[in-house]
Amino acid sequence: MTDTGTTSDTGGGWTAAWELLLPTAAAPPRRRGRVLQSALREAVRSGRIAAGTRLPSSRELAADLGVSRGLVTDAYEQLTAEGYLRTARGAGTWVSAIVTTVRASAPPGGQERATPGADPGSGFLPGTPDLSLFPRAAWSAAHRRALGRLPHSGLGYPDPRGLRELRVAVAGLLSRRRGVVADPERVVICSGVAQAMTMLGLTLGELGHRAVAVESPGSPEHTALLTAAGMAVVPVPLDAEGLDPGALTGSGARAAQLTPSHQFPSGIAYSARRRAELLDWARAVDGLLIEDDYDGDFRYDRAPVGALQGLDPARVAYAGSVSKSLAPGLRLGWLVVPDRLAARVVERKRTMDLGNPALDQALLAEFITRADYDRHLRRCQRAYRERRDVLVAALGERFPGTEVSGIAAGLHIIARLPRRYGPERAFLGRAARAGVGLRPLAAFAHEPARDDGRVALVMGYAHLPPARIVRAVGLLADAVVSPTSRA
Amino acid sequence: MTDTGTTSDTGGGWTAAWELLLPTAAAPPRRRGRVLQSALREAVRSGRIAAGTRLPSSRELAADLGVSRGLVTDAYEQLTAEGYLRTARGAGTWVSAIVTTVRASAPPGGQERATPGADPGSGFLPGTPDLSLFPRAAWSAAHRRALGRLPHSGLGYPDPRGLRELRVAVAGLLSRRRGVVADPERVVICSGVAQAMTMLGLTLGELGHRAVAVESPGSPEHTALLTAAGMAVVPVPLDAEGLDPGALTGSGARAAQLTPSHQFPSGIAYSARRRAELLDWARAVDGLLIEDDYDGDFRYDRAPVGALQGLDPARVAYAGSVSKSLAPGLRLGWLVVPDRLAARVVERKRTMDLGNPALDQALLAEFITRADYDRHLRRCQRAYRERRDVLVAALGERFPGTEVSGIAAGLHIIARLPRRYGPERAFLGRAARAGVGLRPLAAFAHEPARDDGRVALVMGYAHLPPARIVRAVGLLADAVVSPTSRA
Repeated sequence: MTDTGTTSDTGGGWTAAWELLLPTAAAPPRRRGRVLQSALREAVRSGRIAAGTRLPSSRELAADLGVSRGLVTDAYEQLTAEGYLRTARGAGTWVSAIVTTVRASAPPGGQERATPGADPGSGFLPGTPDLSLFPRAAWSAAHRRALGRLPHSGLGYPDPRGLRELRVAVAGLLSRRRGVVADPERVVICSGVAQAMTMLGLTLGELGHRAVAVESPGSPEHTALLTAAGMAVVPVPLDAEGLDPGALTGSGARAAQLTPSHQFPSGIAYSARRRAELLDWARAVDGLLIEDDYDGDFRYDRAPVGALQGLDPARVAYAGSVSKSLAPGLRLGWLVVPDRLAARVVERKRTMDLGNPALDQALLAEFITRADYDRHLRRCQRAYRERRDVLVAALGERFPGTEVSGIAAGLHIIARLPRRYGPERAFLGRAARAGVGLRPLAAFAHEPARDDGRVALVMGYAHLPPARIVRAVGLLADAVVSPTSRA
Repeated sequence: MTDTGTTSDTGGGWTAAWELLLPTAAAPPRRRGRVLQSALREAVRSGRIAAGTRLPSSRELAADLGVSRGLVTDAYEQLTAEGYLRTARGAGTWVSAIVTTVRASAPPGGQERATPGADPGSGFLPGTPDLSLFPRAAWSAAHRRALGRLPHSGLGYPDPRGLRELRVAVAGLLSRRRGVVADPERVVICSGVAQAMTMLGLTLGELGHRAVAVESPGSPEHTALLTAAGMAVVPVPLDAEGLDPGALTGSGARAAQLTPSHQFPSGIAYSARRRAELLDWARAVDGLLIEDDYDGDFRYDRAPVGALQGLDPARVAYAGSVSKSLAPGLRLGWLVVPDRLAARVVERKRTMDLGNPALDQALLAEFITRADYDRHLRRCQRAYRERRDVLVAALGERFPGTEVSGIAAGLHIIARLPRRYGPERAFLGRAARAGVGLRPLAAFAHEPARDDGRVALVMGYAHLPPARIVRAVGLLADAVVSPTSRA
């Protein structure tokens, strides 16, 4: 009964969606049972019905869908047997928390490994903010205002660079919060960091680049996107200060992708010296640094370090989005590019989609200029800081000796468990059977790392309320130290 | 005073946007005058302040912007002298209707030649629906409902294929209105026909295609997008029934782009025999027909002919959008693809943007399933039919002997004027000086057409209220037959 929170503030409206989710009545009568089962299975698997969601009673759902109650009862029984649903006598039917949802969309920004539309349940998969904090009322009000003030002509074909009001608002925001030097004319509104990477990869190709260096460990998604854009990708190792400039020099690449404010996944912040060295390198090779500032808004121990871009706007392309600050489903982000790349990048944006939706842009401009955005960030910052503290404390209690590394920032930590919990593969197997989603640090390495026998995890915590963090750490501890599992 | 309609239903909210449009106060005092002038010039030129918009009084604008009134007066005078603004003593200052706005976004779907965010003024440039008909209240209500019922998980990373509810709604819509055979699993929600063309061009490249045949005359945008996606483009001539299959056979291409329901720009509908011949060709060469159904919703003399796709879903990729039916600024469209292409197309969609914004999709699904979409189409259909009749009648009266060709459909006509109005270049020059935007048919030819000495125009009418159509035809007639212009 504790994990039904996903529908809490959608109220009664949610039930109205069943007939859309499970379009059963349209099927011929003799196939309806099968259609309902597979639609329900697919809805759970894809995360469209989130883990922990309580389903309507068979009587209610049958009425909503216009089918017989027996069909619904059969479907619930079948899917309970398959593990998609859980049933408690007299207490109803829920979507099981242990379902591994299909990853239909591999997201950008390295850290973003969440399943689409999926409630990560009791898992620590990194990459998603707490979507229940999304400011629905303020967003709705901003939509109304934005639509009210948009002239008719604003509904025509957009400027592929983005709505000027939004470019001005974003330039101000990035300058103020991140130290980005952002002339609105150099800001390109885009759908997020994934699109930014694709645009930059294609643009670099036009300019004669063949390869881009990427951080190792780093985001498999950046590698996939740059590769799809025709670039060879050269993994370059990190040291304690950031990407190793020596290795970069030998890489053959003249462009490098970085997460200097909070490296993903290691969690380090690049040192000032390393930033300067990398800029020297970029100037020397007439190259480009691609800064993915995926979670630069969240730092808990001090003011965030400014973006690398601010040090040399001619040598850094800066990408960010609202995916961590508001919601990835909005598909709104920005790319600040050096002058010499601007026209080519905009032309790529144009051929990809002609520009972002006009009204969404007007809405976000409204949201930023009225300070709703800052207000929301403050609220998230408070919540996430607490959750980080709770996770670190819970690990200390239930997994004594665990080392947490990385700066106090962002939406995830790196946790290295004491040797007695290894080997890692067995640990992850037990965690999976206990229904606790975990991602090992090794999943982000470009080549198999030297195995030191210790379990090292990338743990996302921002999407989990404190009580759930404590419970999930408890579940994990019980699973990995129980007599059967230690046999 | 008659052309101030663009802000009619935005009410007082519009004035609040001035400080965003003209961010003058941030400039150092001694540069403010210059900054204001260039911001105002740029806003007019780009269409962000639409032609016909009445500007605030210098006193009001000065107060809004926090600058001295003298600066505003100077700016108004300067821009009036430059032709961007018009001033009538005691009656205020307007944005001039004759400004040629910068074409920041070259839109898709051939017919779409409108300037971004620009009120086309008294021009007949084809490609835009009447944006003042956009159902703002219903759209706003649908946003509220969609946000209310979307579970939190719905704000996470979207499915790159599109929200299932929307794919189901679109499949139903296309099946019902256009005879498209659309399994929701084969529907890919995208940002419009431009993105569909780019995805298909890239996908065809992966499958070993080198070239795509396109209609001639046809859309320069399709050619540009397919070329940017790496395809060679082969123009193939049309005859009275559609694309010439004989010329297609010799083209070397195994894919062809078509507008069979209402060819752009010629206005013909492909004959049933030609449809069958083209499908035979596609099957014989193991090829693909790309159907751009850009305005298939609007037919005034009979029920629309069903989409080509319905005849052989395995050989036709069908693309459409809400750009003509609702507004291009929404950037929402769909592509229905044959099974064998689906996975590759979706992967391209994923690398381009990970999927369309989730809430926009939920909103459109809501809008379609509650029949708001059909209701809006009926309203537009009535308005556009009347406007077409008014334009044809006005041309008959002021340009006797004009031939209007093409079926009674869509948002534009082809008008061939009697020989006495030629030569075309001089005619267009006079029209431009009179402030009437016109696009000659020759602009859509891939090679210079044989000049028969007659003026042939592609005239968009859907965006113009009847009174404005009559006035613009009158302006045009006065301009081209006045003694000075005929000298």
